[in-house]
Amino acid sequence: MEPATTAASVPDFSKGDGLVAAVAQDAATGDVLMVAWMNAEAYAETVRTGRAVYYSRSRGKLWRKGEESGHVQIVRAIYVDCDADAVLLKVEQVGVACHEGYRSCFFRQVTPDGVCIAAPRLVDPAEVYRQA
Amino acid sequence: MEPATTAASVPDFSKGDGLVAAVAQDAATGDVLMVAWMNAEAYAETVRTGRAVYYSRSRGKLWRKGEESGHVQIVRAIYVDCDADAVLLKVEQVGVACHEGYRSCFFRQVTPDGVCIAAPRLVDPAEVYRQA
Repeated sequence: MEPATTAASVPDFSKGDGLVAAVAQDAATGDVLMVAWMNAEAYAETVRTGRAVYYSRSRGKLWRKGEESGHVQIVRAIYVDCDADAVLLKVEQVGVACHEGYRSCFFRQVTPDGVCIAAPRLVDPAEVYRQA
Repeated sequence: MEPATTAASVPDFSKGDGLVAAVAQDAATGDVLMVAWMNAEAYAETVRTGRAVYYSRSRGKLWRKGEESGHVQIVRAIYVDCDADAVLLKVEQVGVACHEGYRSCFFRQVTPDGVCIAAPRLVDPAEVYRQA
């Protein structure tokens, strides 16, 4: 790999009111697990600790993925897109990514017949937050 | 697949000022190609035409992917996440996804040594907009 730019220039948190979109992809299977948000603090902690940390827009605070459920994401690689307002994390997902008990948050497929469940539920949602 | 909810309830454009995040993933390789945005109109046109249509936040209008470059995305499947504010498109990418000439917009990897180019440039960016 050849050097590109300094790390200081990316991600660019100025475009999205201090947030960038963050995609978590299963490093082993390539499945897209979830999309969330990061502010500069969440990103810095993710880089420093090697665990995915997001920013919860609804709760207005850092969201250390798996802090309650134990379903952490171990970050194997971080990529940033061309305009620096989105990051891609390749992660090792412990347990399931989705609070509804599915491996991926994208378990619903939109089809001509409506929205269908396209993946098996692996964990009872009530159990997700009992395993911490 | 079992029916889940009505298609009318998803995506939910009310959370993100009328926009949802949209991830395009290569249907064949699983590579994440790009992250962009959709408003309700862009989503509806994507579903109707089977070609990825986004909403350009910077230009403030619909962005029919590939309209200038010819590098369209043929949509093979659409998924929506658990809280309905992000969609995942599995696409057949014609040409390259990135306007900088890379297959994926996530061609830069963040490493302890800085940000490095982690993929080959396949097309001269000047050529991208000459092929339309």
